[in-house]
Amino acid sequence: MTLELYNFPASTCSLKVRICLAEKDLKWIDRSFKPHENKHLMQDYLAINPNGVVPTLVHDGTPIIDSSTILEYLDEAFPERSFSPVDPVGRARMRAWLRYIEEKPTPAVRYPTFNRILIRDYQDLSDDDFNTQAEIRPLKTDFYKQMGRDGFDDDAIDRAVGDIRSTVERMEKALAEEGPWLLGGFYSLADICVAPLIDRMEDLGYESLWEADLPHVTRWFKTIKDRPAYLTAYYHGARYSEVFPDLGLGRRNADVAV
Amino acid sequence: MTLELYNFPASTCSLKVRICLAEKDLKWIDRSFKPHENKHLMQDYLAINPNGVVPTLVHDGTPIIDSSTILEYLDEAFPERSFSPVDPVGRARMRAWLRYIEEKPTPAVRYPTFNRILIRDYQDLSDDDFNTQAEIRPLKTDFYKQMGRDGFDDDAIDRAVGDIRSTVERMEKALAEEGPWLLGGFYSLADICVAPLIDRMEDLGYESLWEADLPHVTRWFKTIKDRPAYLTAYYHGARYSEVFPDLGLGRRNADVAV
Repeated sequence: MTLELYNFPASTCSLKVRICLAEKDLKWIDRSFKPHENKHLMQDYLAINPNGVVPTLVHDGTPIIDSSTILEYLDEAFPERSFSPVDPVGRARMRAWLRYIEEKPTPAVRYPTFNRILIRDYQDLSDDDFNTQAEIRPLKTDFYKQMGRDGFDDDAIDRAVGDIRSTVERMEKALAEEGPWLLGGFYSLADICVAPLIDRMEDLGYESLWEADLPHVTRWFKTIKDRPAYLTAYYHGARYSEVFPDLGLGRRNADVAV
Repeated sequence: MTLELYNFPASTCSLKVRICLAEKDLKWIDRSFKPHENKHLMQDYLAINPNGVVPTLVHDGTPIIDSSTILEYLDEAFPERSFSPVDPVGRARMRAWLRYIEEKPTPAVRYPTFNRILIRDYQDLSDDDFNTQAEIRPLKTDFYKQMGRDGFDDDAIDRAVGDIRSTVERMEKALAEEGPWLLGGFYSLADICVAPLIDRMEDLGYESLWEADLPHVTRWFKTIKDRPAYLTAYYHGARYSEVFPDLGLGRRNADVAV
């Protein structure tokens, strides 16, 4: 049996899958790309993942795409340690979280991430070269065009930070009513799916979004970060503050007004 | 056993679930709202669906939210007639389609729909009243603010139509390679999930997006529309061309350049 994971070291969607693989104690081959190499946009890769994004899991030669889909696949193909409830209602509660996490915080974290870090790869391109970079992305052309070479405007960043605030408020409510995990006593794919997004916001210095007044989220995040699987997934270089120490990233560095 | 479905007659996400209920031959109580009444944004409803959107399925008193989540729930709770493959790889292929359908065509159809139809409920509001309408929507505040009372600009409509074109091109490739359904011989939740979006585009007159040069999608759409369950779900009043005959909607009415 062979598992290969095409991924970026610091990509939040890659980290969702790396945490799950570590929780299941599965061995896998690390097919690690660097974002600026654009290997994820070349024909060989698009043949296995037409979305042109990471991660892709390849299990005995069969590609599985989309991070949430990969998480559920891992739970079905390797059910010994499962992070999905067994009852349909519990599974629906978990999936409603997954859909919300895909719709709101997953895209939201990209806005401050690109403005603070990744835009540096594009700022010096010509108009034509920048447009080419946007157009070759099957899912993200509009995102790149909105960004341009000058980055997202303040309104776009405010909306993105607002979406993260809505996310942690929704988490706080669930954790306060039940806890210690999003589905109560059961540590699930919902926790695994949202954690890298919260981690990214901390890595960009936005931790006051929850530490200021959301004690349950603060406690939840500390608890999940202490899990051995989390520490395995977050090897050195999985956070941008480690990759770019010169950028002044990390805790308490962003200018945040909630 | 009681199934209730909170839904709008013409909402694409409501129709996804109504088709599935009809395919399974399940009896359900129709909790039908009208969009402009805003009952889906009132406290009673937000208590069962914090996203403030339709549909919500209530099964013996337990609410299940998010249309894709409801589809998978119905297949798990009522597995006699299942539209999910049994093998993990097949299920992952289906879910990768569901994620793509949620990310691209599901939001895309809202842009021409609002510009042609639903914006009429908002055009005469004051600034304050319009902002209130935007702010009370847990998931769609940004969408309403982008729209404003003047509607989306041409670029936004072009992007949305482009996303639909990308969707039908992706479908054409899958149907040409295998077919007659998106997962080959197996009619699945992926077909059920995307059909109301294609139907909406036809209802707005955009059918040349696939009929011009995508014969497999054209054949697929004709085939699914002929299914008895589809005809049940699309009762009279489930298409805007029927609700607003004065608006000149329906086939061959949109100005489309592919």
